[in-house]
Amino acid sequence: MPNPILVEVTRGNLVESRHGGAVAVVDADGATVLALGDVAAPVFPRSAIKAMQALPLVESGAADRFGFGEEELALACGSHGGEPAHVAGVERMLRAAGLDVAALACGTHWPLHQPSGQALARAGGTASALHNNCSGKHAGFLCAACAMRAETGGYVEPAHPVQREVKAVLEDLSGAAIPDEHRGIDGCSVPNWAMPLADLARAFARFATGHGLAPRRAAAAQRLRAACAAKPWFVAGTGRFDSALMEHFGARMFVKAGAEGVHCGALPDLGCGIAVKCDDGHGRAAEVMITAVIARLRRLDGSDREFLARFTSPALRNWKGTVVGGIRPTDALDAPSSRSART
Amino acid sequence: MPNPILVEVTRGNLVESRHGGAVAVVDADGATVLALGDVAAPVFPRSAIKAMQALPLVESGAADRFGFGEEELALACGSHGGEPAHVAGVERMLRAAGLDVAALACGTHWPLHQPSGQALARAGGTASALHNNCSGKHAGFLCAACAMRAETGGYVEPAHPVQREVKAVLEDLSGAAIPDEHRGIDGCSVPNWAMPLADLARAFARFATGHGLAPRRAAAAQRLRAACAAKPWFVAGTGRFDSALMEHFGARMFVKAGAEGVHCGALPDLGCGIAVKCDDGHGRAAEVMITAVIARLRRLDGSDREFLARFTSPALRNWKGTVVGGIRPTDALDAPSSRSART
Repeated sequence: MPNPILVEVTRGNLVESRHGGAVAVVDADGATVLALGDVAAPVFPRSAIKAMQALPLVESGAADRFGFGEEELALACGSHGGEPAHVAGVERMLRAAGLDVAALACGTHWPLHQPSGQALARAGGTASALHNNCSGKHAGFLCAACAMRAETGGYVEPAHPVQREVKAVLEDLSGAAIPDEHRGIDGCSVPNWAMPLADLARAFARFATGHGLAPRRAAAAQRLRAACAAKPWFVAGTGRFDSALMEHFGARMFVKAGAEGVHCGALPDLGCGIAVKCDDGHGRAAEVMITAVIARLRRLDGSDREFLARFTSPALRNWKGTVVGGIRPTDALDAPSSRSART
Repeated sequence: MPNPILVEVTRGNLVESRHGGAVAVVDADGATVLALGDVAAPVFPRSAIKAMQALPLVESGAADRFGFGEEELALACGSHGGEPAHVAGVERMLRAAGLDVAALACGTHWPLHQPSGQALARAGGTASALHNNCSGKHAGFLCAACAMRAETGGYVEPAHPVQREVKAVLEDLSGAAIPDEHRGIDGCSVPNWAMPLADLARAFARFATGHGLAPRRAAAAQRLRAACAAKPWFVAGTGRFDSALMEHFGARMFVKAGAEGVHCGALPDLGCGIAVKCDDGHGRAAEVMITAVIARLRRLDGSDREFLARFTSPALRNWKGTVVGGIRPTDALDAPSSRSART
């Protein structure tokens, strides 16, 4: 059975496009809080799990050894826009470990933040691996490799100690073994492990609460979450969804996008983790899915409600700024109770 | 009933994302050649119908009066990348009518062709409405308004003579009246009219063959198609799908993308028009849909087959150039006969 249509895109009086998807909200014990669609099929979390991929950076002692503060930890957990302060932070991380851009195996793309790319070109510069949105995560892997006394070369290979540790972390957090055949190669060349949405949501619940984790791991997760809550701009950047939500909600919320329509998050005080996947890979729909779920789960005051509405039902404007349509949750996503509360 | 899944995106051993959609192939008399999914629901064709929106430019006499050749007509039918020769062509069109960039109401965006945008920034320039992918269409509207002795101001309004004529053209080509409530505003601010895919496909069959059209309209359509076949780079640009297909197939094929996963085309010698819509609006899937349909319809020799395979089942590479997955038609799209012929 196909997943339900959770998000619609309108133009004029008509629905122009439709997005199916699945949603899992799970607590740290693995109990289902909400499930829509198929939450058992394996899904590549892509960049949504960067904060979990950053656990070895803290647990290995590298973060302390290299004197990393909240900005560096948020960069390791983030998909940055390649804005100047993002790039400077990643350079700082590499320099602390005696490395430079040549050590990065993530590949090169121009900054996601368009004005930063234009400024780079205007200054006669060109893109490097530092501008890759994953360079903070990769700097974190390299620093972890140093602290683990592993070779830095080959740090993206599945057999490298850092990547083996990442897989063990994901299995510990989710409470489920991941078959080797669920390995894919991510856009930045590291292994990415497909997991059921329900397992992903449970992993986020445990990452957010520490329940069921060894004390050292729980403390490392807490430190990474606190860094993202304190410096959300370093997790994404100017005008970006994840930064905006964590700036508003602070430590009450963790959210992180992945490519291909994955979005994960956690509400630490409510003790639950969230994982959504838009079937077709569209991030615009995944953002509506996760905000609609947050609006269902969290008791919102007026200012929270007003803030979230911008993301739950964003207007679509054309190049002249005219509103031509919008994006909205369907009834299948937006429970009648929260719907009537909104209108 | 939801539309069938027509395209899958893979990573490693798994399907990562899925695209549903609908396909209509219709001849000039309206007879169905192929129908997959719901071909009766209204779909905004967006930029896929630019060649039809350019008919008033030719029929009004503007193209002759201003001495437009194949490049200008292809620009009017196209969604260009904002490369320097695209921009120069649009400026030439405006100048011929005594106008300049200030007359364009399409709004501004940076060139779709990233290296051209970077070169523009490097030279200290900034984007203007000339770089908008729709500026050639808009220049065509303005020139048509001049020849029709209408005001150029307000040429994007539904009540303007040029836009009224565009609607009449679409109804004539499709053979079906379009209700006023099916009007939306396009990304470039002109009216866009939602039509059933089956009607759109019929419109393309008539555009491509002239069957059932007044001789003057048939001749105008023929002139626009010939311009696109002769100068396909001006319809899209470097590395772009529509340009690549028309460069290879020449006058044997017309193809044009629209936003939100619409792709239309025609095979003039086979007498049929094609309209596809990816439900979720993803262009990567619409390209696979229309190439798979073309491969089903057209008897392909070895070089055609090899050429099309790049677009029917493209590989996905990451930032390092590693193949990490691919995009492929499902059995619902790729008939078993053509499938076995390919493998």
